[in-house]
Amino acid sequence: MDKRAIVERLLAAKEASGKTYDELAEALQLCNVYVAQLFRLQAQLKPETEKKLVQLVPGLTEDLLKAMRACPVRSYDPAILQEPHVYRMTEVCAHYGAAILDIIHEQFGDGIMSAIDFKITIEKIKGAQGEDRVLMTWNGKFLPHIEQTK
Amino acid sequence: MDKRAIVERLLAAKEASGKTYDELAEALQLCNVYVAQLFRLQAQLKPETEKKLVQLVPGLTEDLLKAMRACPVRSYDPAILQEPHVYRMTEVCAHYGAAILDIIHEQFGDGIMSAIDFKITIEKIKGAQGEDRVLMTWNGKFLPHIEQTK
Amino acid sequence: MDKRAIVERLLAAKEASGKTYDELAEALQLCNVYVAQLFRLQAQLKPETEKKLVQLVPGLTEDLLKAMRACPVRSYDPAILQEPHVYRMTEVCAHYGAAILDIIHEQFGDGIMSAIDFKITIEKIKGAQGEDRVLMTWNGKFLPHIEQTK
Amino acid sequence: MDKRAIVERLLAAKEASGKTYDELAEALQLCNVYVAQLFRLQAQLKPETEKKLVQLVPGLTEDLLKAMRACPVRSYDPAILQEPHVYRMTEVCAHYGAAILDIIHEQFGDGIMSAIDFKITIEKIKGAQGEDRVLMTWNGKFLPHIEQTK
Amino acid sequence: MDKRAIVERLLAAKEASGKTYDELAEALQLCNVYVAQLFRLQAQLKPETEKKLVQLVPGLTEDLLKAMRACPVRSYDPAILQEPHVYRMTEVCAHYGAAILDIIHEQFGDGIMSAIDFKITIEKIKGAQGEDRVLMTWNGKFLPHIEQTK
Amino acid sequence: MDKRAIVERLLAAKEASGKTYDELAEALQLCNVYVAQLFRLQAQLKPETEKKLVQLVPGLTEDLLKAMRACPVRSYDPAILQEPHVYRMTEVCAHYGAAILDIIHEQFGDGIMSAIDFKITIEKIKGAQGEDRVLMTWNGKFLPHIEQTK
Amino acid sequence: MDKRAIVERLLAAKEASGKTYDELAEALQLCNVYVAQLFRLQAQLKPETEKKLVQLVPGLTEDLLKAMRACPVRSYDPAILQEPHVYRMTEVCAHYGAAILDIIHEQFGDGIMSAIDFKITIEKIKGAQGEDRVLMTWNGKFLPHIEQTK
Amino acid sequence: MDKRAIVERLLAAKEASGKTYDELAEALQLCNVYVAQLFRLQAQLKPETEKKLVQLVPGLTEDLLKAMRACPVRSYDPAILQEPHVYRMTEVCAHYGAAILDIIHEQFGDGIMSAIDFKITIEKIKGAQGEDRVLMTWNGKFLPHIEQTK
Amino acid sequence: MDKRAIVERLLAAKEASGKTYDELAEALQLCNVYVAQLFRLQAQLKPETEKKLVQLVPGLTEDLLKAMRACPVRSYDPAILQEPHVYRMTEVCAHYGAAILDIIHEQFGDGIMSAIDFKITIEKIKGAQGEDRVLMTWNGKFLPHIEQTK
Amino acid sequence: MDKRAIVERLLAAKEASGKTYDELAEALQLCNVYVAQLFRLQAQLKPETEKKLVQLVPGLTEDLLKAMRACPVRSYDPAILQEPHVYRMTEVCAHYGAAILDIIHEQFGDGIMSAIDFKITIEKIKGAQGEDRVLMTWNGKFLPHIEQTK
Repeated sequence: MDKRAIVERLLAAKEASGKTYDELAEALQLCNVYVAQLFRLQAQLKPETEKKLVQLVPGLTEDLLKAMRACPVRSYDPAILQEPHVYRMTEVCAHYGAAILDIIHEQFGDGIMSAIDFKITIEKIKGAQGEDRVLMTWNGKFLPHIEQTK
Repeated sequence: MDKRAIVERLLAAKEASGKTYDELAEALQLCNVYVAQLFRLQAQLKPETEKKLVQLVPGLTEDLLKAMRACPVRSYDPAILQEPHVYRMTEVCAHYGAAILDIIHEQFGDGIMSAIDFKITIEKIKGAQGEDRVLMTWNGKFLPHIEQTK
Repeated sequence: MDKRAIVERLLAAKEASGKTYDELAEALQLCNVYVAQLFRLQAQLKPETEKKLVQLVPGLTEDLLKAMRACPVRSYDPAILQEPHVYRMTEVCAHYGAAILDIIHEQFGDGIMSAIDFKITIEKIKGAQGEDRVLMTWNGKFLPHIEQTK
Repeated sequence: MDKRAIVERLLAAKEASGKTYDELAEALQLCNVYVAQLFRLQAQLKPETEKKLVQLVPGLTEDLLKAMRACPVRSYDPAILQEPHVYRMTEVCAHYGAAILDIIHEQFGDGIMSAIDFKITIEKIKGAQGEDRVLMTWNGKFLPHIEQTK
Repeated sequence: MDKRAIVERLLAAKEASGKTYDELAEALQLCNVYVAQLFRLQAQLKPETEKKLVQLVPGLTEDLLKAMRACPVRSYDPAILQEPHVYRMTEVCAHYGAAILDIIHEQFGDGIMSAIDFKITIEKIKGAQGEDRVLMTWNGKFLPHIEQTK
Repeated sequence: MDKRAIVERLLAAKEASGKTYDELAEALQLCNVYVAQLFRLQAQLKPETEKKLVQLVPGLTEDLLKAMRACPVRSYDPAILQEPHVYRMTEVCAHYGAAILDIIHEQFGDGIMSAIDFKITIEKIKGAQGEDRVLMTWNGKFLPHIEQTK
Repeated sequence: MDKRAIVERLLAAKEASGKTYDELAEALQLCNVYVAQLFRLQAQLKPETEKKLVQLVPGLTEDLLKAMRACPVRSYDPAILQEPHVYRMTEVCAHYGAAILDIIHEQFGDGIMSAIDFKITIEKIKGAQGEDRVLMTWNGKFLPHIEQTK
Repeated sequence: MDKRAIVERLLAAKEASGKTYDELAEALQLCNVYVAQLFRLQAQLKPETEKKLVQLVPGLTEDLLKAMRACPVRSYDPAILQEPHVYRMTEVCAHYGAAILDIIHEQFGDGIMSAIDFKITIEKIKGAQGEDRVLMTWNGKFLPHIEQTK
Repeated sequence: MDKRAIVERLLAAKEASGKTYDELAEALQLCNVYVAQLFRLQAQLKPETEKKLVQLVPGLTEDLLKAMRACPVRSYDPAILQEPHVYRMTEVCAHYGAAILDIIHEQFGDGIMSAIDFKITIEKIKGAQGEDRVLMTWNGKFLPHIEQTK
Repeated sequence: MDKRAIVERLLAAKEASGKTYDELAEALQLCNVYVAQLFRLQAQLKPETEKKLVQLVPGLTEDLLKAMRACPVRSYDPAILQEPHVYRMTEVCAHYGAAILDIIHEQFGDGIMSAIDFKITIEKIKGAQGEDRVLMTWNGKFLPHIEQTK
């Protein structure tokens, strides 16, 4: 029941299937980052999706599926925060944080973007000069801070 | 030349103008978060934009504009990382970090999304159940790690 | 616009009114902790509540009310985490964290208790030996982690 | 005598019993979170409870019971503090800390809620809009700071 | 209402009285460390003690007494942890921690020494070689971890 | 030569002897916490004590005794600082630190309590209401800061 | 797939080849530090380079090459920051940071040196007094902070 | 004698002179980053340089020069480490640290690059595609770890 | 009674006297670092020394002397740990720590060097190649860990 | 190639030789702490010393000597910083840091004591009262901060 070891086996099964996350996401009609989360035991595999996934990735044995079906205990290796791409994302959060909050307040009022009722996808697009660009879309339900009535 | 004090005056000038960041962004044809960054001295005001901005926000006196024209020393108050909305953004970076990297690697190969040649916008949209949702778009140039030839 | 200074004036106005938080909460039909949050600029004063509050606490001048009406930038002084009562609360979170998660997973499945659509109250009750006890009620909407469909 | 390994075996025994924590709590007349603490070696199994528990969970062999009977050395994996549900609980402690203390002071005077003579339960309830809500009840003895007389 | 400033005035009043903490403690029949805590706003001045204290320390004006009567928000400057004497005390806690817990478990069972129903005194004594020794007595109520019954 | 493994064997030998730390301390005429330190390799076993100890705890084989005779490299697992009892002790150090220093200065002048020429014992006593209390006695040589003459 | 273990085998293969990093760098026409990064799985081996490298270092078996071809997850052991040479480099970054930024702003305007389109080499040179000197050349593309236009 | 205030006045004097750091560096025959360090009180102004500098920057009054002549207590605001350019420099140190050490060991043997007998310059150059590049040259004396003979 | 402000005045008085720390140390027959500690309120001025010191440094007014006579609350600005010279000293402590302890154990047995009954001096000497060298002498009483007898 | 495992074997070889560090240091004409560093792989064994050392410590097999000959990657276990003796050394660095720097500045001007061209020894001496004292001698080359000329 060691998360790291199961993830390694899940990634091997995915590699053996020869499919990319984008291909799996297309077939499952799920966000591509979310599919990667499933293989890292960071999201829970739902029954309807499981039916399709076992067709797409043959190596998912019952013990692996059992792990994917469980409620995940979300976690991360702090080292990921120092990886250059991930660092730049947290850098944006910190350096733009106050400005982002200004916009949220003007557009929505007092509240937050949910990280639970939340979708995230990554797309490869072309920029105006023909350069490759990463387009990351964060889409979270707005949750207003409620007035705590009795 | 105290950043915090100038920002407070800039925010007061913006409030006095009666315009929202979205209205300013529309008039300036800039991303809305970026406009908020300008008022927090986290981005540099360019000459063409300055011409338009002084029309939109009358209270921008010469000393304020001088501060906006300078190369900013980007910084942030660490307390912003504990604000609930901003925290949830960094939570996403940490919990999805490895999965996001998986997608970047499959779509682009070895490299990162730039946080410098980068655009970020926030939009208020409706979800499938009619709920308000925050749509945040991150759009950064892909920078491949180069082979360091002599 | 210094939060600490405004809070000090708000607490003075409340003290001058001679009312306890419980009395204000009863009159406003709000949770008692939430009323205290209003006076610490940690929650947003809503229009209907404002009408009642100005009757109850005469010293709330327009500039104070303006601050209470704004979207708060939630924050805290890290020193509060070392205060003995608050420390014991965070101690409970840490020492019971895994067990609490076990119960959430069994009762609700994969998801969290919202800290946004959330109510918290404190009551003084008697225990079986007649001793005073603190009864703290946390009541938050359950937010299920969604399957991120396209 | 490795805590982590024993806990894993205890959780397996509990799973094999087919009973939920709520069912065990009902049968033992104990708080549900507390029962989960017993299976994580975070609380001490008392003799009367042991008699009932071995009936309910057959897989509790003598070596496991010996571990459950010992005075626990309470501890936690710091990673639990980054799990989304547990984080939101500590977020509440930090953001509401000063306000909670205000209420304690008004209701009880100078003192704290005990985390030792303490009960915590979680219940699934329905909200006004029919939504699922987490109701967490913290119930701790009030301990007044004493005047330290000779 | 700045704690640091009030404490400085309280210490000045005490110095002006020409009395030591031991003399005040004797006259008030309180622990000597506790009396020092009163002058640092780390403990609450009780009515009976106040009556005696104002006789002993004439400079305690009403505004100072009002501060001493309030429920204190206990806090400390982290720098105190690096002061050589205080550091050695925390060093003892860390290096002897597990052994101290062993003794508590053998003598009392599962529980803790309260830091709330607690007395601490310091005495100057002579050792076997005639050397000066610091005798610090910690005396706290034992609080057993309860079984959390419904 | 792995400290943790040797300690586990030492604790097992002590348990097998059926003696408590208090009984060993009485027989050895040593402080009870100090005896527990010996079994955790946090203090050095002296020759005269060794002679008596091997009579009291038969399972102390030569390799264990060799480890007990060596100069210990004092260390601690940082997790012990989060154990509830030990935390409350460090909490006392922090919250009372400045006041304790005040008393030391008044009674002794400029100097510290040694943590090296130091004795610590724990006793179970009854309080005025018949309650169990932990009496912890810290007894350290006073070390005056010297004037550093040539 | 344990990075540390593969790196150890890669370093052994390099040692067995009898070649220095400078010799490999010369033969591959790559920066010397970059070649060392390849052997530490901190950079991706490109196809043309692989063809030459397998001639130079015979011990690079297919499984090692597969690891070298993958997109690396860049990481570092925090202990490296305390190694005396590396520490002095980070010391320079910290102590010269503001001054370096001044020069960048004057020479280039608002932007940064890329750490992705980046080359770093180390050379041994002689100083004016004939002493050995380390000449480290950092060469990174300048990335201007863009104006975020719609 | 507040460093921050003097630096602000020094930077104003430099700005009033209308000269860039590169122009001053050229006239003084010093490294450009070093000249910026002089104006930030991070390096000591030497007599020969002072004679030339007062000609170039007229606003350097005697009190400012006195501060520049003193041995600096080198320091930095930790916030500079989060500025994007400076961060990328420390990122290079961390991610390339082990590889850089490999090269130093092969070229020089056991030792370090001095950060004291050290020169650093920044130059704006063109890359192969005509792009602007930052060329940073670090040049430090090699200091071999000595064998500590009696 | 602000330590930093008094220290600044003390350093000005010393500068006005025109004497170096070495000259004062010689005249007072004290260690040179200790004399510097006196001027930084990190050591207590003793009566006999005071008599001589007021002759040597005329600007020491009564309020300054009163501060120097008090028991100091030893403290330090954490920034001093990043100053290059002081950092190298702590680097030695960390990198040589285990080896230093080996020597102490072999020469003295179980115990420590006191930092209280302690003298430290710095001398400028010539090395074998005629180079300037810093000779720092640490001289502390050995304190054996005692056997904690009843 | 695991440093910790090799060090354990080296220490065993040294113990088997029956020689103390002082005896080895005398025979090798090296500083005693340095010899201990050699056995902890914190310093590089030089050829002339190796010839003598293999005579003195017979158990140094070729694989151990190979490890001792390599350029060490200096490192330390952070736990050593909490060992009482080592802590007191870092305490001295912190509490005396500013004063030490004052003396360095007066005696040498702007620069540092090298930790690379550096010798450290420990001696057991008698104090004026006949007490054992630890005499630690730090002897490092003075490195002046250079003026960074072009």
